[in-house]
Amino acid sequence: MSRIEAFSDGVFAIAITLLVLEIHVPEDPGNGLGQALLDQWPAYASYIVSFFVIGIIWVNHHAVFDHLQRADRPLLFINLLLLLFVAVLPFPTNLLATYMQEGGADERVAAVVYSGTMTGMGLAFGALWTYASRHGRLLGETLSPPEVQRLTRRFTVGAPIYLLSMLVALVSAPACLALNALLAVYYALPSGGAMPHRIA
Amino acid sequence: MSRIEAFSDGVFAIAITLLVLEIHVPEDPGNGLGQALLDQWPAYASYIVSFFVIGIIWVNHHAVFDHLQRADRPLLFINLLLLLFVAVLPFPTNLLATYMQEGGADERVAAVVYSGTMTGMGLAFGALWTYASRHGRLLGETLSPPEVQRLTRRFTVGAPIYLLSMLVALVSAPACLALNALLAVYYALPSGGAMPHRIA
Amino acid sequence: MSRIEAFSDGVFAIAITLLVLEIHVPEDPGNGLGQALLDQWPAYASYIVSFFVIGIIWVNHHAVFDHLQRADRPLLFINLLLLLFVAVLPFPTNLLATYMQEGGADERVAAVVYSGTMTGMGLAFGALWTYASRHGRLLGETLSPPEVQRLTRRFTVGAPIYLLSMLVALVSAPACLALNALLAVYYALPSGGAMPHRIA
Amino acid sequence: MSRIEAFSDGVFAIAITLLVLEIHVPEDPGNGLGQALLDQWPAYASYIVSFFVIGIIWVNHHAVFDHLQRADRPLLFINLLLLLFVAVLPFPTNLLATYMQEGGADERVAAVVYSGTMTGMGLAFGALWTYASRHGRLLGETLSPPEVQRLTRRFTVGAPIYLLSMLVALVSAPACLALNALLAVYYALPSGGAMPHRIA
Repeated sequence: MSRIEAFSDGVFAIAITLLVLEIHVPEDPGNGLGQALLDQWPAYASYIVSFFVIGIIWVNHHAVFDHLQRADRPLLFINLLLLLFVAVLPFPTNLLATYMQEGGADERVAAVVYSGTMTGMGLAFGALWTYASRHGRLLGETLSPPEVQRLTRRFTVGAPIYLLSMLVALVSAPACLALNALLAVYYALPSGGAMPHRIA
Repeated sequence: MSRIEAFSDGVFAIAITLLVLEIHVPEDPGNGLGQALLDQWPAYASYIVSFFVIGIIWVNHHAVFDHLQRADRPLLFINLLLLLFVAVLPFPTNLLATYMQEGGADERVAAVVYSGTMTGMGLAFGALWTYASRHGRLLGETLSPPEVQRLTRRFTVGAPIYLLSMLVALVSAPACLALNALLAVYYALPSGGAMPHRIA
Repeated sequence: MSRIEAFSDGVFAIAITLLVLEIHVPEDPGNGLGQALLDQWPAYASYIVSFFVIGIIWVNHHAVFDHLQRADRPLLFINLLLLLFVAVLPFPTNLLATYMQEGGADERVAAVVYSGTMTGMGLAFGALWTYASRHGRLLGETLSPPEVQRLTRRFTVGAPIYLLSMLVALVSAPACLALNALLAVYYALPSGGAMPHRIA
Repeated sequence: MSRIEAFSDGVFAIAITLLVLEIHVPEDPGNGLGQALLDQWPAYASYIVSFFVIGIIWVNHHAVFDHLQRADRPLLFINLLLLLFVAVLPFPTNLLATYMQEGGADERVAAVVYSGTMTGMGLAFGALWTYASRHGRLLGETLSPPEVQRLTRRFTVGAPIYLLSMLVALVSAPACLALNALLAVYYALPSGGAMPHRIA
């Protein structure tokens, strides 16, 4: 395992674990702790979506680096940009959890910021793959051209859909969160091609 | 060490270390700092139990992956589900520490949530092992069928006992915490079989 | 990868990810959440600068250790000193984010502390390289003397410029932050020499 | 690097980086931010001492594991106990930083808790080495009996001195912190024997 993968894995692991700090212990629950815990369901919903989004980006990041034979300086910085969006995710997650029950304009602003962060992450991921695969720049011999094209479609389709979810956010925050969850499910499904996951 | 183990270890290490954020420095202690520190004994008790629970899950996670020869996509996501329960553990730990002295219904609600998280974790762990070992799917040749059966018993017995501790939680939060501690001791004991811990 | 690199990478990855805790969810935004989010632009600006500063120090730390053949005890402690400044960075970042809009003396004090931390980090990095490369003490045979000289210039020029940014901080906090960003860009550019980034 | 070392390194790296969360940004500083920052010098002093204590324990932990050829289950749990004390350190550090200026009984209570945590850590470290080295149980052939004896003296002398610092804490918190710093310096010095630090 190279140092760039180890460092990235560290950031993924920390960001995914820091998400829990967003779930607060209710203080002075008037109607009982049970009710207070149920009332903060947006915190759990956004926690779970963000957790699986980061987890799945990690899986796909893994898949990309399995195909790379070398890294250069630009790749390093595109990767750093991707990690910036991953590391910042606890903030919009917390924002959405706080404002999703509020209703009104604030709720939609929070959802737009959440989707906007996802869009940035999707763009950075697409850029990482596009930079690495263009003219086979950093790839090894393990992929045929059709496979590269299939992966390019897969890894660049996220950004426009996240962008679409920003529009949905203008209408409904829960619908926006649900769309993000759906996209996570899409990326969780096997890609139909040759991307076995080696373990040892 | 594979990337899936490295990532999992990262989440284990971060979750176990984040637990400390639940122990708060007392502010304006009226009867002296010493008394205020003693009064928050539930924070220490739940810290210690959660610390060893995560530590022991890490040890057993390690034991499972020592026997795997490869990973596939479903295993990756079952593992992600397990990590979700591990990473969220600081929240119920904090919840229990806050409400364990309160008495009444809130204390028992906190204990039920704590045990419920443990149950989820136990179920995910059992699912991980069962998926990997069923029909020897992902195992190497290192285990005989009786050994697989013994490990299956060991790794699936946790969930029902955690479920039992949810019932205990309805009666007494400290008894529930004690039962969780006992289960940790059980998993800490050697399994009686061939699971030496290689270091190099 | 050696344990000293792994430990350092861990600290880099955690410090860079903890930065997000400095960005707070606005509470009770009077003029709407959108305005409240825009108002805390210093938090985003200092987040981004600190994120890339840590990221780039990580890249250069990597470059230094690629050339080392061995480590001794003094190197270990100089490295620990560097990590102290990296790990503490979330504090001055938070300080600057909090006071950058305040104006007056407090804003400049915050900027001086921010630049001062960067200066300490630059000094520690320069000391790390100088100690390791003096008389070729810990280097392998991979670098020619002119290359060592070029890297020495590169790795020791940071501290005086950070020191300069402390003077700028006395006049303008935003100008000081911009100068720190510029220095990050300088270190992000390729060094013109032979420092390819191996990935596998 | 084995998984037990990687996991331990993760906990060390996270605990050492979480220490920064104890340093708070002053709010509403009446006499100016500069003065408010100077007033919280105990936070910086205890941060620095705790940072180097964890760093040095990491170095010595590394030294111990360099001599181990294998690990068994008891070692795993003694190591987990050591990590518990390392991971909890941000709490007493924060406690000491908060109460060191208070004077009176509370200040001394905080110092006793700080020293007590260090004592526990010292005992766990001594137990780790003693268990591993007794009758050469887990050691390789790399150490002669006199070297083992020298290391045993070195790794078990910490606990009684930390215990002594608890007595000092009853009289003066700053003197107690200074004694802890001195002990860190002792462990930072080379051990006079054969413990070179391999890097690759």
